[in-house]
Amino acid sequence: MNQTIILKSRPEGTPKLSDFEFQKDDNTLSISDGELLLETKYISVDPYLRGRMSDAKSYVPPFNLNEPITSGVVAQVKASKHNNFKEGDYVSGMLAWKTQQISNGEGLNKISPDRAPLSAYLGVIGMTGLTAFLGLQEIGKPKSRETLLVSGAAGAVGSVVGQIGKILGLRVVGIAGTDEKVDMLKSDFGFDDVINYNTTQDMAQAIKDTCPDGIDVYFDNVGGPISDAALFSINRFARIIICGAISVYNKTELPKGLSVQPFLVKNSALMQGFIVSNYAEKFPEAMTQLSGWLSEGKLKYTETIVEGFENTPQAFIDLFSGKNKGKMIVKA
Amino acid sequence: MNQTIILKSRPEGTPKLSDFEFQKDDNTLSISDGELLLETKYISVDPYLRGRMSDAKSYVPPFNLNEPITSGVVAQVKASKHNNFKEGDYVSGMLAWKTQQISNGEGLNKISPDRAPLSAYLGVIGMTGLTAFLGLQEIGKPKSRETLLVSGAAGAVGSVVGQIGKILGLRVVGIAGTDEKVDMLKSDFGFDDVINYNTTQDMAQAIKDTCPDGIDVYFDNVGGPISDAALFSINRFARIIICGAISVYNKTELPKGLSVQPFLVKNSALMQGFIVSNYAEKFPEAMTQLSGWLSEGKLKYTETIVEGFENTPQAFIDLFSGKNKGKMIVKA
Repeated sequence: MNQTIILKSRPEGTPKLSDFEFQKDDNTLSISDGELLLETKYISVDPYLRGRMSDAKSYVPPFNLNEPITSGVVAQVKASKHNNFKEGDYVSGMLAWKTQQISNGEGLNKISPDRAPLSAYLGVIGMTGLTAFLGLQEIGKPKSRETLLVSGAAGAVGSVVGQIGKILGLRVVGIAGTDEKVDMLKSDFGFDDVINYNTTQDMAQAIKDTCPDGIDVYFDNVGGPISDAALFSINRFARIIICGAISVYNKTELPKGLSVQPFLVKNSALMQGFIVSNYAEKFPEAMTQLSGWLSEGKLKYTETIVEGFENTPQAFIDLFSGKNKGKMIVKA
Repeated sequence: MNQTIILKSRPEGTPKLSDFEFQKDDNTLSISDGELLLETKYISVDPYLRGRMSDAKSYVPPFNLNEPITSGVVAQVKASKHNNFKEGDYVSGMLAWKTQQISNGEGLNKISPDRAPLSAYLGVIGMTGLTAFLGLQEIGKPKSRETLLVSGAAGAVGSVVGQIGKILGLRVVGIAGTDEKVDMLKSDFGFDDVINYNTTQDMAQAIKDTCPDGIDVYFDNVGGPISDAALFSINRFARIIICGAISVYNKTELPKGLSVQPFLVKNSALMQGFIVSNYAEKFPEAMTQLSGWLSEGKLKYTETIVEGFENTPQAFIDLFSGKNKGKMIVKA
């Protein structure tokens, strides 16, 4: 039996289970020449998918209603009439939330479970790792001994950003939402300091205290009041990387906050949004670097694996209450 | 008689005349070897000076209370014991608000009234022109046929930015505060379209209407609600140049507005503050370009000249109600 998860309604505010619908059918999928039959193994759920569920103009078109959601997926080839893939191969790519699907192979990367666990191809050596590495390098242009602040530090991207910061010789301060995450980032990932925003009254002061030399690079995954608070500590020529704004994705009104312009002009600071595909030509080089660090043990990762294809919508929803540590992945 | 204008108190909100004080003395200034006696001819009053009147941490130290204000000044050498300058020479530089003063020549540029009117060295071929040119080029990286939006378009920097945009082949839309300014920008400076923000109800819609292909480069001199409204029209990879935020300089509370982060991430857009001295190594090249355009008649300028040294504080205050067209200059 094949299952598909479609977008039933555009979420208002925080997504609900009823925004998604399961479709089941017993049809046997048959492939033609040049096609593959894929069986889904792991599904990546990511905050940015929230944007595609709205129908606002954006750089990528919104998901259509009553059609499957797509995201990063690791799948196994069950049958192939394609020259480049054979039965048993593993692939990663942007695929539909289906237990089985047919592909013409376009956009699929062959991956090896011998080099790294399959799920890592969705995380630390997948789009997540590339997002962390390329955002930090291309926009942040970090220099040894500078101070790097990372919000959403215990998330998939943030936990990799902080570690890369340490590899590059920066002082790294994180912001996370539970004491357990704080401990993990300090003990397991080598962050120099971490602020628990849920137990901190005055975030601006806490950031000042933990970044006594000011912030040179701020890798921002959250937006909102936390990012406002960071503005008071930015240094001259600071670079603020806008990777995401998870704290406001579910707002039904346009989010407001401090005007950033006076801070930017006073400090000749830069703030830049990006998506990882802007740097597609750098993927091979970046992947080599990330895989190297991973195999040398310099880069660690954590995952929150949710079992069962049917739990994919809930796993996605749980991102917004920070239930994940590191990469949130569904094992189909 | 020598007169000096000192900062008497740090302005709260909009500066008042009582924040300044005149000091007069009859002492004859005498120079030593390596020094010059300068007589002030023109004084530049600029919005950014407001920042230096507060004692907030910034890239330049605040003015000290009970000491003279400094800004761009054109002066004539009345006596010289310095090898590089002789009596009668004209110079420009950052100098005190004094009718006469002594200098060791450091930071002074010799200028020629034969090449351009003396006041232009404070404007279109001075810091103003450099600010317009280098901000637009270095951050805006404009490409022919892109759309450039300029706020504070009738101001000293804005009017030059728009003209450079036209020279470079862009579609240029301005924002200004009176119909007279709108007419001037269209008729005299070649802007393609100009919005009067004082008579426009829905700025976001007006910007959409005048920038039907979206905004590729936004040169922002004002900040505040006008800049919020521009966010709705930015294109993918838009560059937002934060040159100033005159609309909020006099706020006594931290200004708030739309959170820019979601707009930046959605469009992979960049927002960067600067001061012209960041690009000091490009001044000679930029000055050659600006002088060339000026002598070819491609670049025009307008000035609001206020007569009388004693009117310098009022001229400065009038910047914030937009009393100037183009560069505001005091003729001492």
